[in-house]
Amino acid sequence: MEEFKQVIVVRTDIKMTKGKLAAQVAHAAVEAVLNALEMGLRDWVDLWRSQGAKKVVVKGENEQTLIEVYERARREHLPTALIRDAGRTELPPGTLTAVAVGPAPSSKVDKITGRFKLL
Amino acid sequence: MEEFKQVIVVRTDIKMTKGKLAAQVAHAAVEAVLNALEMGLRDWVDLWRSQGAKKVVVKGENEQTLIEVYERARREHLPTALIRDAGRTELPPGTLTAVAVGPAPSSKVDKITGRFKLL
Repeated sequence: MEEFKQVIVVRTDIKMTKGKLAAQVAHAAVEAVLNALEMGLRDWVDLWRSQGAKKVVVKGENEQTLIEVYERARREHLPTALIRDAGRTELPPGTLTAVAVGPAPSSKVDKITGRFKLL
Repeated sequence: MEEFKQVIVVRTDIKMTKGKLAAQVAHAAVEAVLNALEMGLRDWVDLWRSQGAKKVVVKGENEQTLIEVYERARREHLPTALIRDAGRTELPPGTLTAVAVGPAPSSKVDKITGRFKLL
């Protein structure tokens, strides 16, 4: 059976505390799952969860990297979410922090995020 | 208008890398949102998102702390998710790592998680 996963790319060129980083990854993960449901991809969400809801957090270079990942995921019709921080705590308002791709078949996700290293 | 939030409690007595920790927080966040939808609480999910989907990551002492938070959330009929790691990478199989409470009205969440400090 095909493996499903979700990959979350976070920026490595900005400083975030552990808690802030985890919250940004969670924002991206949740929004991409809701995006999948809105796209009518409940089967993908269910299959992914039945396999343990695999999530992989990887390092992106900068803001431009996140935008490119987001745009490629959209072109490929994969669920995705690009997170912009409200900037109430550690970061300037509007800072892009993370982008999630999937849940989707791993082969499709890897075409977009395969080059990134694990955080 | 009432404020909504989601709080994710992570264990501080086990060692996790930044990426592992972020993935565990994301697991808890996603599962609690799906739990909310399954409980028929779409209004809470929508209100929370319309307010920016506030997520707060806090420190729990140990496994027992996480179990208590989960059980209290269930007794109060709040969406929740307790995450047990499959143990394929850094942790022994079955290790409890995180628990999410909400999205729900902040006043209800705070009754359960108000005593924990920010991660």
